[in-house]
Amino acid sequence: MTVVGVIGGGQLARMMIPASINLGLDLAVFAEAEQSSAHLAIQHVGDYRDVDQLLRFAEGVDVITFDHEHVPLDNLVALQDQGVAVYPPPGALRLTHDKTVMRSALALQGLPQPRFAVISEIDEDSLAAVGGFPAVVKLPVGGYDGKGVRVVTSWAECEDWLQAGPVLLEEFVPFRRELAQLGARRPGGEWVSWPPVQTTQVGGVCSEVISPAPDLEDKAVREAQQIAKTIAESCGVVGVLAVELFESPDGRILVNELAMRPHNSGHVFTEQSVTSQFEQHLRAVTDMPLGSVELRQSAGVMVNIFGHAPTESFSRIAARFPSVKFHSYQKSPRPGRKAGHLVVTGEDLSVSVELARAAQEAFDQEASA
Amino acid sequence: MTVVGVIGGGQLARMMIPASINLGLDLAVFAEAEQSSAHLAIQHVGDYRDVDQLLRFAEGVDVITFDHEHVPLDNLVALQDQGVAVYPPPGALRLTHDKTVMRSALALQGLPQPRFAVISEIDEDSLAAVGGFPAVVKLPVGGYDGKGVRVVTSWAECEDWLQAGPVLLEEFVPFRRELAQLGARRPGGEWVSWPPVQTTQVGGVCSEVISPAPDLEDKAVREAQQIAKTIAESCGVVGVLAVELFESPDGRILVNELAMRPHNSGHVFTEQSVTSQFEQHLRAVTDMPLGSVELRQSAGVMVNIFGHAPTESFSRIAARFPSVKFHSYQKSPRPGRKAGHLVVTGEDLSVSVELARAAQEAFDQEASA
Repeated sequence: MTVVGVIGGGQLARMMIPASINLGLDLAVFAEAEQSSAHLAIQHVGDYRDVDQLLRFAEGVDVITFDHEHVPLDNLVALQDQGVAVYPPPGALRLTHDKTVMRSALALQGLPQPRFAVISEIDEDSLAAVGGFPAVVKLPVGGYDGKGVRVVTSWAECEDWLQAGPVLLEEFVPFRRELAQLGARRPGGEWVSWPPVQTTQVGGVCSEVISPAPDLEDKAVREAQQIAKTIAESCGVVGVLAVELFESPDGRILVNELAMRPHNSGHVFTEQSVTSQFEQHLRAVTDMPLGSVELRQSAGVMVNIFGHAPTESFSRIAARFPSVKFHSYQKSPRPGRKAGHLVVTGEDLSVSVELARAAQEAFDQEASA
Repeated sequence: MTVVGVIGGGQLARMMIPASINLGLDLAVFAEAEQSSAHLAIQHVGDYRDVDQLLRFAEGVDVITFDHEHVPLDNLVALQDQGVAVYPPPGALRLTHDKTVMRSALALQGLPQPRFAVISEIDEDSLAAVGGFPAVVKLPVGGYDGKGVRVVTSWAECEDWLQAGPVLLEEFVPFRRELAQLGARRPGGEWVSWPPVQTTQVGGVCSEVISPAPDLEDKAVREAQQIAKTIAESCGVVGVLAVELFESPDGRILVNELAMRPHNSGHVFTEQSVTSQFEQHLRAVTDMPLGSVELRQSAGVMVNIFGHAPTESFSRIAARFPSVKFHSYQKSPRPGRKAGHLVVTGEDLSVSVELARAAQEAFDQEASA
């Protein structure tokens, strides 16, 4: 029996459980707390910053993968040194740990991205080089879901961050919309990618995904897929890679962020695609041939539920929305927290979008009632 | 949090786990052994014939349902007497516990079924009444997957059973094919049903399911659905009901067997339908509104894997069958045992059938290699 160790017990680890059940893999989760979203598959509760705990955990697994990108790279290298397969490998994960490393690596590959500079103090030349204010300032490490990112129109707005250390200064792209390109890669290089999707962020957090991205020209589709493939190959990614993209007003595709794990923008594929991103990730990290990324239905919509997603709320709206699929993360309530999601698929996008949004609104009303 | 107790740790309980994860329900399995197929959700390992164990188990759950129909009815009544919700209720389960009770109940409802008689000794009048030899002889209790069923052409062939107690003697129906009708019912009466499927048995065990049943006249579809609905309502079924049917050479629909739980013939709906039978069962027994039974794709094929279904075998064929979905039951190998299944869905039935059968053959070759 192959045992896949997952570091992190959040909703991504949770949603790997059904895929592991289908494939006959055993999942062993290293969680932060007993009450984690992936509680059903917990094998160890502890601190992933503690290399000794990680090494002991690794003794019982065949491969280690991740629910998040917060594990210190040194710890991952230590695991590798002990002969444990770590996928994606630390060399690839470096790009998601530090946004300045990511920007430099993409630049080396000649991939399209916002202009950027790494600055440690007020630097008018660098500001001019990225197009002046408004500009985007990012903390290199630790940001997610809009945290650690600011759009600034003056130096005063990022003074505190500059005092703490170097920051990434980026061109502000007045994008037409945001897209995400997901794919997966096996250790030997096999690569598949889903169609790009359209994502909508609210306050920096993904709120809605439409799959495939509507009205996206074939050229842009190919470009998005080629960008993801280039990143996966050049960095040796193993598992699911998610590339968050801007579509600029003139139709150019620019890389915004990366994640090397299943990603919020790919949840829609669980219902819509022959192979979910969670199954694909498990296939990739266990070196199994990748599954078909064909879509079973032409229109897919995913909407997030924030704060609290109790089953009782879903139950109260379910009679009105029999075709809406609910995914609970079984998390304790917290304002703004991703608590669950809903998916609608069909053959008429406008119908699916309307239904998903109506269900999201009804759910929110029930949950806050 | 709603906790659903499932008695039995087989593949049906196993496949309820993904549905419980999506819905945010906690599943607590009462299993026969630690190494059960549903091991991930085990809460108690013990003997379901022991009412004390069942009562203790029930203290921690909100509702009790089943992976199989072998729990003694007295034990279920004892659970009900303690105020535990048992779905389906013992009064409905009586029909699946004893085939003579089932035949009598269906006769009371005027539902079409093979002619039958309950006999305790050689009885030429009863034999004549069911059409003479060949006839079908069934043990009233405990049979499944073709066990406890014989097609006989002489009394000698069932002498041993007759000596042990009463048996069910049934008309031999030279059916055109076998069908199955699945539906689900909530405590308050809400009822939904999937389209009928075509099933193929080998040695009394389901081997292949095609969904929906091809070339079935609308009248027969309506009849199959009405039969299932009548049974569900008249017996107070709660949860999934599966009705195995014969289609006679002259196009009549006759009830063969019943199951009041998810059923092998409904596995195809996990991929093909908006709501899987496992999710539907959990919705029904927790009194949640039922999900849509719409099909996402028009053609669905399920094939069983017998004996041994190692992930390694799937991995070796997966590159040739990227769109084939694998479901491992993680059971120890045993000849003839249902060990897993494969599903293919699409828009062209002949393509899906060919693919599913080719994958089944390739899998069997790999597993026996």
